Amino acid sequence: MIRLSDVLELRVRYSETDQMGTFYNSRALEWFECGRTELMRRRLGMSYAALEARGVFLPLVEAHLDFQGGARYDDLLVISSTVEVSGRAKLRFEVLVSHAESRKAVVCGYTVHAFTDRQGKPIRPPAWFTQLLAKAADNVAAAAGATGGVSPETSRLS
Amino acid sequence: MIRLSDVLELRVRYSETDQMGTFYNSRALEWFECGRTELMRRRLGMSYAALEARGVFLPLVEAHLDFQGGARYDDLLVISSTVEVSGRAKLRFEVLVSHAESRKAVVCGYTVHAFTDRQGKPIRPPAWFTQLLAKAADNVAAAAGATGGVSPETSRLS
Amino acid sequence: MIRLSDVLELRVRYSETDQMGTFYNSRALEWFECGRTELMRRRLGMSYAALEARGVFLPLVEAHLDFQGGARYDDLLVISSTVEVSGRAKLRFEVLVSHAESRKAVVCGYTVHAFTDRQGKPIRPPAWFTQLLAKAADNVAAAAGATGGVSPETSRLS
Amino acid sequence: MIRLSDVLELRVRYSETDQMGTFYNSRALEWFECGRTELMRRRLGMSYAALEARGVFLPLVEAHLDFQGGARYDDLLVISSTVEVSGRAKLRFEVLVSHAESRKAVVCGYTVHAFTDRQGKPIRPPAWFTQLLAKAADNVAAAAGATGGVSPETSRLS
Repeated sequence: MIRLSDVLELRVRYSETDQMGTFYNSRALEWFECGRTELMRRRLGMSYAALEARGVFLPLVEAHLDFQGGARYDDLLVISSTVEVSGRAKLRFEVLVSHAESRKAVVCGYTVHAFTDRQGKPIRPPAWFTQLLAKAADNVAAAAGATGGVSPETSRLS
Repeated sequence: MIRLSDVLELRVRYSETDQMGTFYNSRALEWFECGRTELMRRRLGMSYAALEARGVFLPLVEAHLDFQGGARYDDLLVISSTVEVSGRAKLRFEVLVSHAESRKAVVCGYTVHAFTDRQGKPIRPPAWFTQLLAKAADNVAAAAGATGGVSPETSRLS
Repeated sequence: MIRLSDVLELRVRYSETDQMGTFYNSRALEWFECGRTELMRRRLGMSYAALEARGVFLPLVEAHLDFQGGARYDDLLVISSTVEVSGRAKLRFEVLVSHAESRKAVVCGYTVHAFTDRQGKPIRPPAWFTQLLAKAADNVAAAAGATGGVSPETSRLS
Repeated sequence: MIRLSDVLELRVRYSETDQMGTFYNSRALEWFECGRTELMRRRLGMSYAALEARGVFLPLVEAHLDFQGGARYDDLLVISSTVEVSGRAKLRFEVLVSHAESRKAVVCGYTVHAFTDRQGKPIRPPAWFTQLLAKAADNVAAAAGATGGVSPETSRLS
C-alpha cells in the first residue's frame, strides 16, 4: 500500500475562534484541507489545483473527527497528514493536529475522498495519477533507505 | 431612481462568534448577502440563483461597514436591505443590521455590485432585468398608494 | 433512553459554496449546530444560550459525516436532528440534512458532546438538566399517545 | 505620525472560494486580520494575543473594501499592511492584497480599530503601548537610514 506523509504549520486565526475561547469545531475540516493541499504539492509533485485543472476531482465522501484539546487564537499548530491509497478508487487522509511546542493533541481524524470528473461523476483514478503516486512512494522509500528514516521537513505556508 | 426594500430575521450562529464573545467582523458581509438574497427573491420576483442561471452575475466591487454594537450567539437580528439602481451599470445595497427586540444597531453599511457575465466580463444590465426592477418598483409604489405607506412583512428564512 | 427530535429548514448561503459549485464540506458541521440550537430551544424548553448562561457547556468531542449528495446556493434544506441521552455524561445528536422538496440526502452524521463547566472541566449533567430532558421526553410521549404519532412541525428560523 | 508596515504571504484555501470560482468576499476581512496579526508580532514586538492578555482589545469599528480582481484556490497572495496611529484613540490599518507573482491587485481597503477593555468599554491607548509603537517606529527609521530604504522581508506564516 502506498503511503505519503507531510507536516504543515499554521496559526489559529481570530476568525477561527468562537465564544468558548477555543477554535470552532468546523475549522478542523478546513485545517485538514490545508494539510492535504500541501501534502499533494510537496510529496506528490502535483498540486490539487493542477489535478482539478486536468479534470480530476476528489470530493469528500466521509469524515471523522476526534476533538482532544483546545487551541486558542495565534497558537502555532502542526498538521500531520498521511495519505493512503487502497485498491479501490478512494483516497484516505489520516490527520493529526497538535500544538507545535507542547505536541499536545488538538484534533485527529480522517477524510475519505472519491475520484470524480468535473460533473461529479465517479471515475477510476487515471493511470497517470496512480503512476505519480507510485513514483512518490518510491522516492520516499529511497530517501528512507538513504537516511535510515523519513522525517519530512515542515512547511510553514498556508 | 428605483428603490426596493426588504427585511429578514436571522439568529447569530455559534460558528459566527469569536473569542471576544460577539460576532466575528467578516460575518457581517455574509449577513448582508442573506439580506440581498431574500430581497431579490421577495421584491424583485427573481432569485439571484435564477439570475445567475440566466448568465447575469453581480460580483461585489466595493463594501463599507460601520460596526455599532455587539451581537451574541442566538441573538435574533433584523437585516434591513434597500437596493438602488442608478443610471450606471451598478447596483448598490444599503444594509442595517439591528437587534430584533431592542432595535439597537449592530452594523450598517453598503455593497456595490457590477453586472458581469459568467466569465466576469462587465456587461450592461439586460433589458429584461431593468424591466423587472421597474415593475417591482411600480408594485411598491402602488402598494404604498393603497395602504398609505410601505411596511414589508419580515421574512424569517435564511 | 430519552430521545427528542426536531426539524429545521435553512437555505444554502452563497458564502457556504465552494468552487466545485456545491457546499464546502465544513459547513455541514455548522448546519448540524443550527439543528442542535433549534432542537434545544423548541423541544427541551431551554436554549443552549441559556444553558451556557447557567454554566453548562456542551463542547464537541467527536463528529462523523457521510456526504451523500450536492446542495447548491439557495437550495432549501431540511435538518432533522435527534438527541439521545445515555447513562454516561454524554449527549449524542444524530443529524440528516436533505433537500426540502426532493428529500434527496445531502449529508448525515452525528456529534457527541461532553458536559463541562466554563473552564472546560468535565462535569456530570446537572440534576435540573436531566429533569428537563425527562419532562421533555414525557411531553413527546404524551403527544404521541394523543395523536398516534410524533410529527414535529418544521421551524424556518436559522 | 507613526507608521509600521509588514508583508505576509498566504495561499487561498479551498474553503475560501465560492461557486463563482474566486474567493468569497468576506474572506478579505479574514486575510486583513492575518496581516494585522503578523504586523503586530513582527514590527511591534508584541503580538495581538499578548495585547489581549494584558487587557487591551482592538475591535473593528469601520472597514472598507475595494475588490479589484479575482484570486483562485491555491493562488499565492501577498498581504501588505501598514498601521497608522493618529492622535485620537484609534488605529488604522491600510491593506493591499495582490498576487505574489504578477503583483495584480486583488482587494485593498482599510480597517479602523478602537481601544477597549475586556468588557468592550473604550479606553485610552495605554502609555506602554504608545511607547512600544514609538520605539518600533524609531527602529524602522534607523533601519531605513542604514539601508537607504525599508524593505521588510516577507513572512510566510499564517
